[in-house]
Amino acid sequence: MMKRLLLINPNISQSVSDLIRAEAERSAAPDTRIEVLTAPFGVAYIETRFEAMIGAYATAELVAQHHERFDAVVVAAFGDPGLPALREVLDIPVTGLTEAALASACLLGNRFSIVAISQRIRAWYRETVQSYGLEGRLASIRGLDEPLQDIGNVQGNQGERLVALAERCVAEDGADVIVLAGAPLAGLARTLRGRLPVPAVDGVSSAVRHAESLVALQPGHARCGSFAPPPQKPHQGLSPALARLLERKTGSGA
Amino acid sequence: MMKRLLLINPNISQSVSDLIRAEAERSAAPDTRIEVLTAPFGVAYIETRFEAMIGAYATAELVAQHHERFDAVVVAAFGDPGLPALREVLDIPVTGLTEAALASACLLGNRFSIVAISQRIRAWYRETVQSYGLEGRLASIRGLDEPLQDIGNVQGNQGERLVALAERCVAEDGADVIVLAGAPLAGLARTLRGRLPVPAVDGVSSAVRHAESLVALQPGHARCGSFAPPPQKPHQGLSPALARLLERKTGSGA
Amino acid sequence: MMKRLLLINPNISQSVSDLIRAEAERSAAPDTRIEVLTAPFGVAYIETRFEAMIGAYATAELVAQHHERFDAVVVAAFGDPGLPALREVLDIPVTGLTEAALASACLLGNRFSIVAISQRIRAWYRETVQSYGLEGRLASIRGLDEPLQDIGNVQGNQGERLVALAERCVAEDGADVIVLAGAPLAGLARTLRGRLPVPAVDGVSSAVRHAESLVALQPGHARCGSFAPPPQKPHQGLSPALARLLERKTGSGA
Amino acid sequence: MMKRLLLINPNISQSVSDLIRAEAERSAAPDTRIEVLTAPFGVAYIETRFEAMIGAYATAELVAQHHERFDAVVVAAFGDPGLPALREVLDIPVTGLTEAALASACLLGNRFSIVAISQRIRAWYRETVQSYGLEGRLASIRGLDEPLQDIGNVQGNQGERLVALAERCVAEDGADVIVLAGAPLAGLARTLRGRLPVPAVDGVSSAVRHAESLVALQPGHARCGSFAPPPQKPHQGLSPALARLLERKTGSGA
Amino acid sequence: MMKRLLLINPNISQSVSDLIRAEAERSAAPDTRIEVLTAPFGVAYIETRFEAMIGAYATAELVAQHHERFDAVVVAAFGDPGLPALREVLDIPVTGLTEAALASACLLGNRFSIVAISQRIRAWYRETVQSYGLEGRLASIRGLDEPLQDIGNVQGNQGERLVALAERCVAEDGADVIVLAGAPLAGLARTLRGRLPVPAVDGVSSAVRHAESLVALQPGHARCGSFAPPPQKPHQGLSPALARLLERKTGSGA
Amino acid sequence: MMKRLLLINPNISQSVSDLIRAEAERSAAPDTRIEVLTAPFGVAYIETRFEAMIGAYATAELVAQHHERFDAVVVAAFGDPGLPALREVLDIPVTGLTEAALASACLLGNRFSIVAISQRIRAWYRETVQSYGLEGRLASIRGLDEPLQDIGNVQGNQGERLVALAERCVAEDGADVIVLAGAPLAGLARTLRGRLPVPAVDGVSSAVRHAESLVALQPGHARCGSFAPPPQKPHQGLSPALARLLERKTGSGA
Repeated sequence: MMKRLLLINPNISQSVSDLIRAEAERSAAPDTRIEVLTAPFGVAYIETRFEAMIGAYATAELVAQHHERFDAVVVAAFGDPGLPALREVLDIPVTGLTEAALASACLLGNRFSIVAISQRIRAWYRETVQSYGLEGRLASIRGLDEPLQDIGNVQGNQGERLVALAERCVAEDGADVIVLAGAPLAGLARTLRGRLPVPAVDGVSSAVRHAESLVALQPGHARCGSFAPPPQKPHQGLSPALARLLERKTGSGA
Repeated sequence: MMKRLLLINPNISQSVSDLIRAEAERSAAPDTRIEVLTAPFGVAYIETRFEAMIGAYATAELVAQHHERFDAVVVAAFGDPGLPALREVLDIPVTGLTEAALASACLLGNRFSIVAISQRIRAWYRETVQSYGLEGRLASIRGLDEPLQDIGNVQGNQGERLVALAERCVAEDGADVIVLAGAPLAGLARTLRGRLPVPAVDGVSSAVRHAESLVALQPGHARCGSFAPPPQKPHQGLSPALARLLERKTGSGA
Repeated sequence: MMKRLLLINPNISQSVSDLIRAEAERSAAPDTRIEVLTAPFGVAYIETRFEAMIGAYATAELVAQHHERFDAVVVAAFGDPGLPALREVLDIPVTGLTEAALASACLLGNRFSIVAISQRIRAWYRETVQSYGLEGRLASIRGLDEPLQDIGNVQGNQGERLVALAERCVAEDGADVIVLAGAPLAGLARTLRGRLPVPAVDGVSSAVRHAESLVALQPGHARCGSFAPPPQKPHQGLSPALARLLERKTGSGA
Repeated sequence: MMKRLLLINPNISQSVSDLIRAEAERSAAPDTRIEVLTAPFGVAYIETRFEAMIGAYATAELVAQHHERFDAVVVAAFGDPGLPALREVLDIPVTGLTEAALASACLLGNRFSIVAISQRIRAWYRETVQSYGLEGRLASIRGLDEPLQDIGNVQGNQGERLVALAERCVAEDGADVIVLAGAPLAGLARTLRGRLPVPAVDGVSSAVRHAESLVALQPGHARCGSFAPPPQKPHQGLSPALARLLERKTGSGA
Repeated sequence: MMKRLLLINPNISQSVSDLIRAEAERSAAPDTRIEVLTAPFGVAYIETRFEAMIGAYATAELVAQHHERFDAVVVAAFGDPGLPALREVLDIPVTGLTEAALASACLLGNRFSIVAISQRIRAWYRETVQSYGLEGRLASIRGLDEPLQDIGNVQGNQGERLVALAERCVAEDGADVIVLAGAPLAGLARTLRGRLPVPAVDGVSSAVRHAESLVALQPGHARCGSFAPPPQKPHQGLSPALARLLERKTGSGA
Repeated sequence: MMKRLLLINPNISQSVSDLIRAEAERSAAPDTRIEVLTAPFGVAYIETRFEAMIGAYATAELVAQHHERFDAVVVAAFGDPGLPALREVLDIPVTGLTEAALASACLLGNRFSIVAISQRIRAWYRETVQSYGLEGRLASIRGLDEPLQDIGNVQGNQGERLVALAERCVAEDGADVIVLAGAPLAGLARTLRGRLPVPAVDGVSSAVRHAESLVALQPGHARCGSFAPPPQKPHQGLSPALARLLERKTGSGA
């Protein structure tokens, strides 16, 4: 069964979208079609809560416009901006890079560490892990400590530093699994295959695989509970696409 | 010292903004000036994660346009949409109805219950409490179980039901304090004074008082750590006001 | 790429192995080969810690004898007897019904409930969820309250009761997702599609899909950390197959 | 409205009472009257559970004798000896330096660190934070590591060392906010204004401000629940003032 | 080896001291000598934080006067008033009814419930369990819901009600073990032997046995860390016995 | 009353059984009879989950064959392989080295550290502590970092290194109590008496003492709840002794 996946890059960096697309296509099953869209507004990459809030809104706009052609949606930034919100209004599966990578990590060991592209980003990642109730399995978060010159080429510039961080996560923090975090690192787990002392996972490949699985499992969608569509109520000033999402009848999805 | 507080109603309901303003003015110190702004886009009231995401963005836009005239900002919806994000970009204190009401509750007893305007809203509130690390002090969340007819008149229509819910929180759930939640209930704690078996607090009055205290304490703002302004990076497509917020130099605020 | 999955039923019930096989084959990708083996010793089904301990040892014996022909292993009983132990000695992915079903549930909502085949089994399931650090996402565990007549036909005999339990999990316990637990319920999520008010997942289908994903992701195996092969040391009295597993050189797997 | 605040120094150090009074008066609103009383028995400052137990009893005696003239009470030692106990028997608001400083810190960031006057005191502070359910927001506790020469002059002797500790809390422990702990540090947050890289708060100023707010909010007092007055029962051997506190009729306060 | 145990009843009820002594003597090894002292000041029994604070101070006074003749001390009220404080200043083992009963319960099952003598007392007990980090093993606390007529005869008056509460803890709350709480119930576990569906333990018998074990194990006492004697500092106004306890040299105990 | 204790060494090392027996006999009350049995199959010592799974099964076989002659059973390996399982099928008390040592530690201080014989073993110990819900009291786990030459002579070879580890647990990790972990360290707490800065406990001596206490307390055994005997169901292929254990009638034990 052909599966159509929509990956949204919540940031404005086309070079990162290219990394996402390449790794998604390498990861996908043969009968999966990948489409990657780039946020029309926002910042170059997300390190903070404020940037994530902007990315969430940009993602919601793109999803609202395009979801109808797809079987599943992936929020393609670590930190998963807007993911729980989107899960309420879509009747197709939706996941994100963090959620999916952590699911993979939890299937491979007990405690995982996250290797990230900056120091600042660690607080936002830690809060994301906590929001998923997984802080008990988080061994550590380590990040690069230099300003990034080129968000589309972090892997090339900083590859050895990232490997060294991962090794410290295992040796000093007790990590059983490494999560290489952030869309700018998409594909790095594949490149480093065999170089790290423990299993390593990546958000994009995990999200593509798990999105495919969710489509295949056909678990149904929420007609009740906290992920049912929001109750109908007046709204104003929203884009037509967002308005349509809010006007979906409760339980109307199929 | 005169203090100027900006309260943002993240929803489009002017009637709720009126409730907020009235209770804020009753609560404020004599030398405090209150201004309430209403979201230009969004929904009538927030019950879900998706609605909160929209409210957060609308709040950010209003704050970006208006913060310079104020000494502190209050996100005037329970659930505090956008609060942690705004704390990064502002160099004045910012709080929200949930955060402020929980701070009051924690100063009055050990465990608190939240009385809310709907069943659906409980998941969103629970996640907000968890994001503040306060789930260990949450006795329960109880909500009205009928659709709201008039968001500006919940107190009148449902007052006795809300009292009954509060009494069950004390008798059955072990609450030491009641939090009357949601801007539509602004002022109800004041109205019910003496009728509830334990102390009761309200988001609007708590937020006004605590915002005043934060201005008075002059604790300084973050030049380092996870609430320092986001590192400079390219952006596009944002409103001029949001763009200005992002272009504030790290540590430049004073 | 053809994937060969070994599913171990840790119990002696051939009728349950048949349910497992049927659902596994329905769930698997076209190029996946499924083999199900039944424990040569043990009990009819696992409800308690003591029964799980026996099932773990029986599983280990079967895995030790057969793993070399496979790309991944699934411990096909809820509670995952022996799973973390097997992860140390195998250099292929291994998962279990609980771990896999919870991974699916966590990708579909925030809080999940488990619907189980008996009252007694709930303590064992709760401890399993806790061992995965996911108690913060567990809404409830509800179980049938009558002795089971025929472990191979629970779904037929008790189907309506199981649906009613699931509905209470949503309405009373706040579940966003239902986990239909236990190999005897394999396939029930598929049968009930559309009848439950929230997404529902099943251990067997989840484990098959996630095992396929782990094979595809090629995350590497542990040469260091707590899931590396056990350090070499004297042993005695073990079956030849178990002895071989223990004698694998640290880091020799590929 | 004039507010009369009673601050109890649970220790015998008059020099610390002077620090408390000075900072309280600087912090208070213009219409607030401050009175500081010093424990007639006890130790020079509290570092341990045993010393806190003595301080709690001394505080209770002073509160029992003097509370009737006041609108609110502050237990003016970090660690808040006796605070939850006093909350049961008083029908006016009561808070303490730790509780109030943590409330301020929680309104200014996500994670806070505590900077303290000795190594030994850290265990007692950690247990206090845990008793408030706030360990999830505690980044670290760091303390001076030399014996104190003069409890009334810690700030002067050790100021630079305290700043250095605070900087390490931010740089190494991830603190968003610094809590300068202990009555001997009263006023230091004010002195250091602008020197620390994140917001800093102080127990005395926070307690004064929050006590004023609680008086203003008039939340009511507990007639039911775990902070209602203790049920009447025989007692003997207590001071007349303590006996009177215990003989207050349940729910009689107002 | 003869062991001399000092049990302190932190309350003024001689009838409860008699219950404590009787059960302690029934529980003790043949070569153990039991002495029970009754608080010279305080209340009839402890239900609240304020009453516990008084009981802690009375216990400390008695311990300070008498500890030198004993090998171990037991704080003989559930809730263990003053226990952690006393552990700092004594160089002999000290335990309490709650701590000891929970230790027994944890050796007999996974989750325990507490059956108590009143509704009000439950908050104080819950906080005590939390202070020991054992809330994860607490299934429930249930209490009698009528005022006690005679604190020395609760078992006779309320025996059947207490059994019914215990049965509900097992059937509804998932308790594996019952803790019969409070000195007024001393001996009830013995009386009910065989009547309860799960193991039941009692504070007094547990405390006596565990105190004997601690004396036998000779684990040494703390010369460093948070239970070493408080650092020397000025004090005033304390009873001679308390003063002597505080003046013990750090590490001088043997 | 004479008490007969069965200690099972879940490993094949006779030299470790000798250490266990010697320390058990030194620790036991005069009227206690000690018997130590060594696993007929398994590994030299347990460091990993897989080795623990084997040890659990070997322990169960020995217990099944021999329990009828005893008043209590001790699983004499740190990590307590099989302990919760055995508690379901025995109607006499059963404990293990970890459970018993942690019970002792919790009676002596607030936070404990574990000193262990290898680096690898730490993950298994941490998971054991978590399974007992005591991670909140765990200060740290430190282990030797060299391969063990002679499992029966670790104390002699590594004694000074173990003392140094314990001292770091106190000075750097905040331990109030040291747990010397693992049967190979049986007796070391006794040998080191007076050399460590805080109380130190040992699994074997703690288990012997607590097992004696549980026999003396006669708390009854579980006829209901999650530690009642497993419900009757078909089994096959088990040893006659294990089969007999499973065929015990629910509630038949006395």
